[in-house]
Amino acid sequence: MSERGSYSQKEPYRGLLHPSDKTIVFAVIDGLGGIPHPDYDNFTELEYAQTPDLDRLATESTNGTHIPISPGITPGSIPAHLSVFGYDPYEYLVGRGVVEALGLGVDLQEGDIAIRCNWCTLDDDGRMVDRRAGRPTSEESAQYVTRLQTEINIPGVDVALYPGSEHRFVAVLRGDGLGASVSETDPQAIGVPLIQPAGSDETSAKTAHVLQEIMRQTFPSIAGDPRLNAFAMRGYSTVPNIPSFNDRYGLSAQAVVTHPAYRGIGRLLGMDIAQVNGKSAKDVIAALAQNWGEHQFHYLHFKWPDTYGENKDFEAKSEELELVSNALAGIQDLNPDVIIVTGDHATPARLGTHSWHPVPTMLWTREGTHFRDDVHQFGERATRTGYLGHKIAATNIMPEVLAHAGMLDKFGA
Amino acid sequence: MSERGSYSQKEPYRGLLHPSDKTIVFAVIDGLGGIPHPDYDNFTELEYAQTPDLDRLATESTNGTHIPISPGITPGSIPAHLSVFGYDPYEYLVGRGVVEALGLGVDLQEGDIAIRCNWCTLDDDGRMVDRRAGRPTSEESAQYVTRLQTEINIPGVDVALYPGSEHRFVAVLRGDGLGASVSETDPQAIGVPLIQPAGSDETSAKTAHVLQEIMRQTFPSIAGDPRLNAFAMRGYSTVPNIPSFNDRYGLSAQAVVTHPAYRGIGRLLGMDIAQVNGKSAKDVIAALAQNWGEHQFHYLHFKWPDTYGENKDFEAKSEELELVSNALAGIQDLNPDVIIVTGDHATPARLGTHSWHPVPTMLWTREGTHFRDDVHQFGERATRTGYLGHKIAATNIMPEVLAHAGMLDKFGA
Repeated sequence: MSERGSYSQKEPYRGLLHPSDKTIVFAVIDGLGGIPHPDYDNFTELEYAQTPDLDRLATESTNGTHIPISPGITPGSIPAHLSVFGYDPYEYLVGRGVVEALGLGVDLQEGDIAIRCNWCTLDDDGRMVDRRAGRPTSEESAQYVTRLQTEINIPGVDVALYPGSEHRFVAVLRGDGLGASVSETDPQAIGVPLIQPAGSDETSAKTAHVLQEIMRQTFPSIAGDPRLNAFAMRGYSTVPNIPSFNDRYGLSAQAVVTHPAYRGIGRLLGMDIAQVNGKSAKDVIAALAQNWGEHQFHYLHFKWPDTYGENKDFEAKSEELELVSNALAGIQDLNPDVIIVTGDHATPARLGTHSWHPVPTMLWTREGTHFRDDVHQFGERATRTGYLGHKIAATNIMPEVLAHAGMLDKFGA
Repeated sequence: MSERGSYSQKEPYRGLLHPSDKTIVFAVIDGLGGIPHPDYDNFTELEYAQTPDLDRLATESTNGTHIPISPGITPGSIPAHLSVFGYDPYEYLVGRGVVEALGLGVDLQEGDIAIRCNWCTLDDDGRMVDRRAGRPTSEESAQYVTRLQTEINIPGVDVALYPGSEHRFVAVLRGDGLGASVSETDPQAIGVPLIQPAGSDETSAKTAHVLQEIMRQTFPSIAGDPRLNAFAMRGYSTVPNIPSFNDRYGLSAQAVVTHPAYRGIGRLLGMDIAQVNGKSAKDVIAALAQNWGEHQFHYLHFKWPDTYGENKDFEAKSEELELVSNALAGIQDLNPDVIIVTGDHATPARLGTHSWHPVPTMLWTREGTHFRDDVHQFGERATRTGYLGHKIAATNIMPEVLAHAGMLDKFGA
């Protein structure tokens, strides 16, 4: 059996996938999971919300909860997304600089060093006064970035700067033999100077030297400004070698998302990026409808529940979940074969941060190949009694999706 | 990003821990788990017991059950303890001799061979009559051990004997190049002679020779005794290299336990050993209260439920669980940040041995970062419906504890 060598416990679909024209909607509600809040009758945000459309879909689905990374581990957005998309987050470690750059539409190449930069304000003695330089507007920030760019000239290394939102921008270094193990210049504290970049190996020492040179060439041009008179650098990273969605699953995929970082995640996995006008849940669904038919796999991302969770705003998160529920009401009308609604991780308003808690998840198929259970509410307590299972590993979701899409051959004779 | 290389799937908290002053009470009820007993309305010992204080704590906690090693595997005390403390029991194999020696307070060094010895009675033909030599008192046994010690003189190898309880004692060999792969001399059967020690490699052959020499030098001095006229040796083992609790978790830890073997487990993990006066559940809690404030992590051990389970005494185990419940009543008054109540393994009175069955577990936090569920009773059936999950891996408990203590940074950007 020639295919035997291609079986893999780690990637259990490998060697079993066959081509298919099935369509899949994979909705990621950012920060979906919560924990009971004493001020709201010990409901979670999702349980407190009135979500008749999600509840109806849960009634028709198989339900469960997932653990993004492993028990007790609080994930960042990137590893959490990789997990729900079936990529081992320990195998594919992605630096923040890369994600920021991808989110801004930068076409990164192998070997590039991507760096998160942020404007800051130093006092006359070079000590940090404001790590966000008084939060300049994106337009103001972009003007300053353009000015910096003209000052930089480093033989043998292309340095490209890309304006981001507010105080943020990205630098990409392109040249031979640049390493990424460099100390961050951002001291992450007030009253102290920027840290001088230093590399921990030969190629990283070269990068550190480039960074020192960038600072030497550009800082004089902004030194007199009362607010944007310096910038800090961190999150140095190179593009990881991640197989695309198409290579891994044989699925043409698009990302229907509203925020740069999630466009970046889509690009990282080789997804096309749909045009979305606006940033609301409704805008995501409108863009999906408009871009329906070109792809098999549709990654939808709903950002705001996470934002409100981080703001400790239980009611705003809850209301946003109602809007997401409402926006997803007509999702079955597009006639997809499989629908998944889940989150990348929990962001309980009670904690105001990402957390390690389980994330409600439901899976529905048009052909009814899923085990419809007795869950009638899309909430933490209800879904965990469902047939999909409680605290399943997030990396197991994609194999379930592929199976329910009828895309997997039998393992073994 | 310097921290990237330090992430570890196997030890998921690695690279994420930050210092903390949180306090944790980790109560291990030995042999806690049970199975339904037909003579007691198909209740388990824990379900049959009246445990209002444990039930109240369960009501305020997140509940579940754990599997100590893996499904179907019955653990010994040591691997079961290592698991609940987050150490992979397959990675850290600990010989019984080492645990016995540590339990007796022996300060073992690297390379030492620790051996479990027990008095036995041989007949005139050297055949085993009683593997416990009629169960001598600890005092009587100690006198004989002292007599043996004076007979031993082996050039290049220090042989130290340590009296234990009743028929048990420990031998520790200290010398260069001693291996531990030696056949046990205890035939574990009646009517047959002791087995001659033999080593399976060069260093173990040297050890076997030392053991033969010990028997040759000492047996004549006791040959005439009607009961304690020989001893058997087994459990040869060297000190494993186990990272201490402090190194692994950054937690200063103490063991509040009543029996030697569990002091040994505490020492193995680098815990301080609290003075406990008495052996009851109440004595453990009294010692905890007296030693509160010096450590962050408090390992409590309640021995008797396991003992009564092994005696097949359903009612005694059940009553002992009531005493443990009662002793734990005021545990929250000490103001710990996190409380775990669990067992190392099940010891169903119906079976009279350790078993592979799931072990009830609850986790409570002062700040309410846990998912309080709808479990109102601390019992096998009730806890398995809780939000912590049914049959979670015991090694996942510590990551949950660290997360709930707020000691773990986010994984990835």
